Amino acid sequence: MTNIFSTMMRIILLCSLTPFATISTAQDPIVPTLPETVSWGWFPLDKQPVITLASGDTVRIETLSHAGATQDEHPDSALGALGVEPSEILPDVIDFWNSRDRRPREGRSGHIITGPIAIEGAEPGDTLEVQILELTTRVPYGINTTGASVGVVGPSYPGSRPTDTKRDILSSQHLYRTKIVADHEVAIFSDGIQVPLKPFMGIMAVAPDPTLGDPGVTVPGVQASRPPGPFGGNLDIKDLTAGSTLYLPVFQPNALFYVGDPHSAQGDGEVSGTAIEQSLSGRFRFTLHKNQSLTMPRVETDQHYIMMGIDLDLNRALQQAVDQVVAFLVTEKGLSPTKSLSLASIAVDFHVAEAVDLTQLVTGKIPKSIFVED
Amino acid sequence: MTNIFSTMMRIILLCSLTPFATISTAQDPIVPTLPETVSWGWFPLDKQPVITLASGDTVRIETLSHAGATQDEHPDSALGALGVEPSEILPDVIDFWNSRDRRPREGRSGHIITGPIAIEGAEPGDTLEVQILELTTRVPYGINTTGASVGVVGPSYPGSRPTDTKRDILSSQHLYRTKIVADHEVAIFSDGIQVPLKPFMGIMAVAPDPTLGDPGVTVPGVQASRPPGPFGGNLDIKDLTAGSTLYLPVFQPNALFYVGDPHSAQGDGEVSGTAIEQSLSGRFRFTLHKNQSLTMPRVETDQHYIMMGIDLDLNRALQQAVDQVVAFLVTEKGLSPTKSLSLASIAVDFHVAEAVDLTQLVTGKIPKSIFVED
Repeated sequence: MTNIFSTMMRIILLCSLTPFATISTAQDPIVPTLPETVSWGWFPLDKQPVITLASGDTVRIETLSHAGATQDEHPDSALGALGVEPSEILPDVIDFWNSRDRRPREGRSGHIITGPIAIEGAEPGDTLEVQILELTTRVPYGINTTGASVGVVGPSYPGSRPTDTKRDILSSQHLYRTKIVADHEVAIFSDGIQVPLKPFMGIMAVAPDPTLGDPGVTVPGVQASRPPGPFGGNLDIKDLTAGSTLYLPVFQPNALFYVGDPHSAQGDGEVSGTAIEQSLSGRFRFTLHKNQSLTMPRVETDQHYIMMGIDLDLNRALQQAVDQVVAFLVTEKGLSPTKSLSLASIAVDFHVAEAVDLTQLVTGKIPKSIFVED
Repeated sequence: MTNIFSTMMRIILLCSLTPFATISTAQDPIVPTLPETVSWGWFPLDKQPVITLASGDTVRIETLSHAGATQDEHPDSALGALGVEPSEILPDVIDFWNSRDRRPREGRSGHIITGPIAIEGAEPGDTLEVQILELTTRVPYGINTTGASVGVVGPSYPGSRPTDTKRDILSSQHLYRTKIVADHEVAIFSDGIQVPLKPFMGIMAVAPDPTLGDPGVTVPGVQASRPPGPFGGNLDIKDLTAGSTLYLPVFQPNALFYVGDPHSAQGDGEVSGTAIEQSLSGRFRFTLHKNQSLTMPRVETDQHYIMMGIDLDLNRALQQAVDQVVAFLVTEKGLSPTKSLSLASIAVDFHVAEAVDLTQLVTGKIPKSIFVED
């Protein structure tokens, strides 16, 4: 939350025997956001792991928002223009900014992504369970962006038509201060409007198996981080708050988990193209399920089993989410496909998790409360 | 809920001085579901009102589900095949079934729709506020339908592709018994699965102003009831439970309100094509807002202001819902369009209300709790 904490962690890191991770007071190793521990806009397949964990291990992982850290202008100046003092800027942001020029950019997106975290023994065909144990803000502000040419209102959005009139939306960065009000962390949108923070990681991924021509794959072996896919990635599912669990199919040896694009608040849809982009620190537990394969990621919360569909076309993303819900009910609850579809229609909620990441993502939220024998 | 109640109401009706409506013990007029008070699959523009109300009046309106009432087979036999006893079938269902042959069908859909309710003084350019005060089941069962060629999995759904393999979904009618369990009315899906009832009217509409070629308008002056539109109609918004309010733009003199397609439980999306289709009785209050025009219907609940987008393409329905949210925040909350879009991205949830009514409907749910000065 503060620079003092961040600086302390960096000192602990420097005293550590391992190059990239150290032990916190809570006995968790910590993966910081140093230039060596982050990638810019993609999920490298052969990058040296920042830490190697066994199934069941917990770890603290820091993340950095790209907002304020990746532009041409120095962060002090870019964030300063929005009212952020230099003392409020994480040193890691400056270090990342200084590292930009030596990073590959072709076919990459804009996110800063921590990793990879290697999971011992993980192989393609396994499932990696990621429990999100804790998520906390690292700075007391976040940034949302708007523009008439981006997000759901932009001309490249699949719902747009050439004859549409351009909307009266300014290209702006909106800095929102966050603070505790009545025991809850909120973003101060205006004097009369406060948005409660519900932090989650926009990106959680395993190293993918990129196929040239797939969404976000324009360079061989390089999966850009913008479009989510079967490997997870830029899911932008707001339900992935602390207490939830993400299940990812494994595509590469040791899984190679990546995390980034931290969000402190987002509506279903993320319609302007961004959430409140705010650097977060997270605690995670990784559990490996051998020889259990998934075709798509799944999420579990206290309240729901959440399936998903991902496609360039929102219609098809919905259809895929329905198929995934049916597959779950058949496999996990023993229903027939027909009865599964019936249950999906009368009890499962289909929501637009995000519509702005090239591929769009629809969630199918199966309420646990309907299973009265569980 | 029972046939005794229904029969009693019919007797009261027959003793009444007005042809179509009577006074209940609660002093509300009652509009029953007689052959004369319902239409089949469209919203007539020139039908004699079943009742005329002043702004502020309350009324009880009965509705009938089409499920079991509109097929070629006699209801006793069709519903009997699903396990329903003849004594459990509303007499109104039999009366409707017997009236089918004298009803126009060209360009019409399948819903049974009660109305119209005329609102004194309503004119095009006004807004009709419909408070949903109470919704109760009329029978202890409902029906959901599935099929590989209907709903989100069907070949005519916009997300489908010619190369898709047909899914293993049977064409079936699923009868679900409903009853009180632990003080809550639930549908018994199976021994281990119970779906809580959250009744709402799938269709609430004012008489439209149909344009030939618009979705559902293939006969001049005839708006089929399947696709929702600016006039409301088959909105299938599950949030429209008792306690919520619907605002509809008025297109015809006296508004001419219609209601039907009763649902006792539905997930966001209604993905098989139907909810639990179950006849309901409702209490409503109508309030006329003169010279307040809306471009699209709006919903208000305890928790949310709900805007909507309606289009054949789900992508475009989402985009329209975003535009409607922005318009609401500009008009009602005094924000700029740019700040409205920013707030929509960080705090407003976009959900697929229904994807199966030809036009698809996306809701944009603005949480009231963020307005801390209200």
